[in-house]
This record gives sequence, C-alpha cells and structure tokens, in this order.
Amino acid sequence: MSVDAAAQLVSLQDIRRAAERIGDLALRTPVVELPHPDRPDDVLHCKAESLQPTGAFKIRGASNAILQVLETTRENGVVAQSSGNHARAVAWLAHRLGLRAVIVMPDVAPAPKIAAVRALGAEVELVPAAQRDTRARELAADRGGVHVPPYDDLRVIAGQGTVGLELLEQVADVDVVLVPVSGGGLISGVSTAVKAISPDTRVVGVEPELAADAAESLRRGSRVTWTPEQTYRTVADGLRTTSLGVHTWEHVQRYVDDIVTVSEEQMLAAMRHLALGGRLVAEPSGAAAVAAWMHDLVPAGARVAAGSGAAAGSRVAAGSGAAAGPWVAAVVSGGSVDPALLASVLERGE
Amino acid sequence: MSVDAAAQLVSLQDIRRAAERIGDLALRTPVVELPHPDRPDDVLHCKAESLQPTGAFKIRGASNAILQVLETTRENGVVAQSSGNHARAVAWLAHRLGLRAVIVMPDVAPAPKIAAVRALGAEVELVPAAQRDTRARELAADRGGVHVPPYDDLRVIAGQGTVGLELLEQVADVDVVLVPVSGGGLISGVSTAVKAISPDTRVVGVEPELAADAAESLRRGSRVTWTPEQTYRTVADGLRTTSLGVHTWEHVQRYVDDIVTVSEEQMLAAMRHLALGGRLVAEPSGAAAVAAWMHDLVPAGARVAAGSGAAAGSRVAAGSGAAAGPWVAAVVSGGSVDPALLASVLERGE
Repeated sequence: MSVDAAAQLVSLQDIRRAAERIGDLALRTPVVELPHPDRPDDVLHCKAESLQPTGAFKIRGASNAILQVLETTRENGVVAQSSGNHARAVAWLAHRLGLRAVIVMPDVAPAPKIAAVRALGAEVELVPAAQRDTRARELAADRGGVHVPPYDDLRVIAGQGTVGLELLEQVADVDVVLVPVSGGGLISGVSTAVKAISPDTRVVGVEPELAADAAESLRRGSRVTWTPEQTYRTVADGLRTTSLGVHTWEHVQRYVDDIVTVSEEQMLAAMRHLALGGRLVAEPSGAAAVAAWMHDLVPAGARVAAGSGAAAGSRVAAGSGAAAGPWVAAVVSGGSVDPALLASVLERGE
Repeated sequence: MSVDAAAQLVSLQDIRRAAERIGDLALRTPVVELPHPDRPDDVLHCKAESLQPTGAFKIRGASNAILQVLETTRENGVVAQSSGNHARAVAWLAHRLGLRAVIVMPDVAPAPKIAAVRALGAEVELVPAAQRDTRARELAADRGGVHVPPYDDLRVIAGQGTVGLELLEQVADVDVVLVPVSGGGLISGVSTAVKAISPDTRVVGVEPELAADAAESLRRGSRVTWTPEQTYRTVADGLRTTSLGVHTWEHVQRYVDDIVTVSEEQMLAAMRHLALGGRLVAEPSGAAAVAAWMHDLVPAGARVAAGSGAAAGSRVAAGSGAAAGPWVAAVVSGGSVDPALLASVLERGE
C-alpha cells in the first residue's frame, strides 16, 4: 500500500496494540450461533458486542483513545458527544478510571440513554443534534479536557478493530462479515483487521434505507452527507449519523466490499429473531447486520464450506446437520433498547 | 474424603476430562456484568449459559455422556426425557452428530419447546409428566438406544461441571456462586468444580418457593419429594423436577453451602433486569439465581475485595467505581422463553 499523507490508515499492528492496551476493560464477546428462521441448518455467527458492560462495542475505541492520554485525562477529564452508546461508553470508562466526564448529547436522544449516562456520574449537556460536535470541541478547548470523538479518529478506529481481530480468532474461515454502518468507526476497524488477516473474506456494511449515506457514498465514489431530517427517520437511533468521517471514508473505500440497506421492518424482525433464536437483546441498530442476513440481502460469498475445517468456531462436527453455504458472521453492535419497542416486536407472530 | 461405595462422586479430574471431550460442541459462554438496579457499583457476574446453541447449559452434560458411547449411539440412536432444555440439547447433538433421537416429553411442556425439538429432526413422544422417566427407559430397552438422563448421571454431572471450571477461570476470587436447582445436575457439577479449586467460595442453590424440594431436603438432611401438583405451580418450567436424584443429592450434601428460594415475582423482575441491564434473554428458571442476588436473599460472603486482585474478570481498574462488597457470580442457565411472557415483563415499569 502506498504511503499517502492525506489518507492516514490504521494498521493491523495498531489494532493488535489496541487489543493489548484495552485488555480486560472490554469483554471478549462470544460468537453466538443464530439459526436462520426458515433454514435451521443455515447458521449466522453473531459477534455479540451487545454484551459489553455498556451494551455496545463503543468502549473498545473509547478506551483505546483514553488510555493513550491517561495522565492528561486525570487532570482535565474527558469530553465526548454522542447520541447514546459512545456517550455511555465514555461515561463508564471515566467512572471506572476515576476521571471527570462531560457528555454532549442531542436533545432528541432517547431518555433511557441519557439517564444511563447520568447514572454513571457524568455531566450531560443537551444541544440540537447539528451542534453537538462543535459544542464538544468548544468544551474541550475551554476546560482542557480530552475530546474523545465517536468515530472519526484513528485511535478509536483501531480500538473498534479489535472486534474483527477477535472474530477471526473465534470463527475460522469466515466468508462474509456483516457490520452496521453509522459514522463508520466500527466497519473501518473491522475491515482493516479482516482484510489484513484474511484478504478473501468479504466485508459488507449494512445501513438503514432511511439513513443510507454511506451506501450512496460508496456507490458514487465520493463521500455524501444526508440531512438529520433524513437520517432521523429511522428507528435505528445508533445509525443516524449523516455522513462517514474523513478517516472512516478512507478505510471504507479501501477495505469494504459493499454496503447494503435494510428496511425498518427488517431490523425489527431481526430484533425479534435475535431475542428468541439467539437469546440476545439487540437495539434496532444492533440488529441491522442480522437483518441483512435473515432477508438474504447479501450475495452469497465465493468459498463453499469444505466440510473438513476443524475450526475453532466449528464448521466441524460432521453429521447431517453441517451447513453447506458460505460462513457468514455479523456484528450485533448494541443492545440498549427501549423496553416498549422490544415488547412490541415480541408480541408479533412470526 | 472417605471412599463410600454408595456415594459415587464426580471428581475435578472427571470435569476436566469432560471439558476436553466436549470441546467446541458447547460454547465457552461469557461472563456478563450486570449492575444492581439500585446500586450501580454492585455488579453481578452472570455466566450466560443461555447463549449455548440450544439456549441452555444442558448440551454440556448430554455431550459428555453421548461422546463416551458414540459408537453405540451411531447404531441405536439416543433416547432422552425432559421438560424442554435437556430434550432440545439431546436432539441438537443427535442432529449435529448424525444420530437418531427419540425424546419423551411431558404433555404439559410449553409448545415452543416441543416445536424446537421436532425442528431438529427428533421423534417426540408426549406422556403424562409422572411417566416420562419410565417411558424413556422402556424405549431405550426396546430399541437398544442409549438413554441420556437429564441430571442423575455421573457423566452428565461432570459435563455440567464445566460451567464451574470456566467460571473460575473467567472471574478470579469469586466469593459466592449462585446456581438454579431443579434435578441438581448443574449445581452438583458446579459445586464439585468450585470446592475443588476454590474451597472458600460459597456455592448457593436457588429454587422457586413453589418448587423448593431441594431447599427442604437440605434443611431436613434427607431427600424429600414434592408432588408434580406442587412443583408445576411455578412459572419456572425448567425447575419443576420433584426431587433431587440419588447422585445429585450426594453432591449437594457434600458441596452446597445453602439453598435459598425466590418468589415468582422476583424471577420475573430478574428476567426484566437481565434483558434491559444485561442484554440477556433468560427464561424464568434461567433468571432464578439472578433474582436471589437482586433481592438480597443471599447472606454476604466472608471475603471482602482486597482491591489488589489483578483478575481476569477485573476486580481491577481502580478508580471510584471499584466495587467493595463480595464478588458474586450467578449462572443464567437458560433462555428459551415464551415471547408473550417476556413481552409482558418488559411492559411493566421498574
């Protein structure tokens, strides 16, 4: 890969270092088998980031960033802006590490997410969605606090990449990895790790149809921005970011094979199936990648299961039940769900 | 420990061998942090057996039994009886290993559990609850199939013990381990492993008040049997067994410190909190041990966190947020829940 001053990319080594640095602050989440609702032998390997202490993968990137400047954060605290899961991750880390935290949240963020951040002892400032990034940087400048961006930051991307590192250790020979896309931090890190270790594995992003700026960007070959009025239509409140970042766009262009879109209905059906078939509580954003698999929106990959692979993740165990199609994994990115919404999807029939 | 011909006990070595034998057929389930609803710094370490491929710990014991007689099962198939989770585990293993399976289920078993077993290709025979064990043994005798008992079997107990083995690797210095009790296979195996490795750790069983035969047995010092009319009152359909088994009673007497009871309401509240605070779907039986912790039914253990322990599970990470009380772990044993029941508990307020 040629060196490009404008395009700073995270390396596999950055991600490996992040894994060491983060250590036990994040959970090594399990890969849970989810049988397809209509084809029981077709199994999705779900990397359950919803089980992280704060309910989402975000503590990986945030801790990788904070731990690199821990002395400064001890003096001046941390500042972050986020619609929810990143906010909660930074507040949780600050609480656990004994740091002061100010979190800027959009005034339309779901009440339970705001409450969760306050319960961790962080100061919360609510602002209109469009102003949150500016306000966070302003606060950091005023108080000298360390600003921890939600996605467009190389340390954050490297931290999120540890999801991909673990996944490839847990599921050998995976053909396709599905990753929800919002600002692109998760898919940037995961795709960097996956392509470095297993270049033939396809990495496919998943976005709501109602917030498909990244899918459009990849199709056009240039980074487009949607309006908050557009992206805030989706129930997937974790995926409403209006565009990829500068850094994440570079990673997506280089490493991501495709980005597909899912409907609102498909995400809700995936939430239901994850709860009943996988015993995992996911928020709509967290279920997006599963939705793409459930509804066959991802073109089948190239490689077919050889049947031989004595894999850590078990393409194994011969018998009649062995799956024959491509091995697909999905990141279940978060589980901070509104109880009423989860109840409503559970009450529907299949 | 004196040798006692009548009391055959599983050893730590049996459990270690079971772990090797089972290998990747069972998931190494994660330990998920669940903050107490009223005391955010008080965290329960939940061993999430609900994430096993069949939704419960049962595949550990069943696979340890089946793999020891695999040649015979290939010829004659397997037979099992169970109210649900053991049935599903045996059916799943038979499917994956290419064996024929006949499963005897009580005619009052929840419809989704029966459907799940049939979907795996097993033959299901429904009988009145009281006849199921006799009928399973009869079928095994008639057809030469290998009978896999749900709990009162040393191979099954050793397999369930791998839950304890993993837990102690994942959470160092745990003070109390809470385990749901039905026929006693899980707590027999877990307590054997825990007492062998960490004798000061207390192992406490948890039963529904409405099916508290094991608690009564331990109090009286003799194994008592309740009627199905009594035990079938509880919503916790996985904990309705009317008495401990011969083998499990021996293990419980030797290794279990106490058995406490929880109300129906307490289990439902724990289901809700596990879903929202831990992103784990549990059935009422699976939430029983969590209920005992949530409602402070377990006397605090002896040891107090030293603050030093650089544990894999992280009593670590200093800061203001470090917990000071005893370290408590609970087995979340299963997650095969009726969707309507889960929806109804989610719809309540806190």
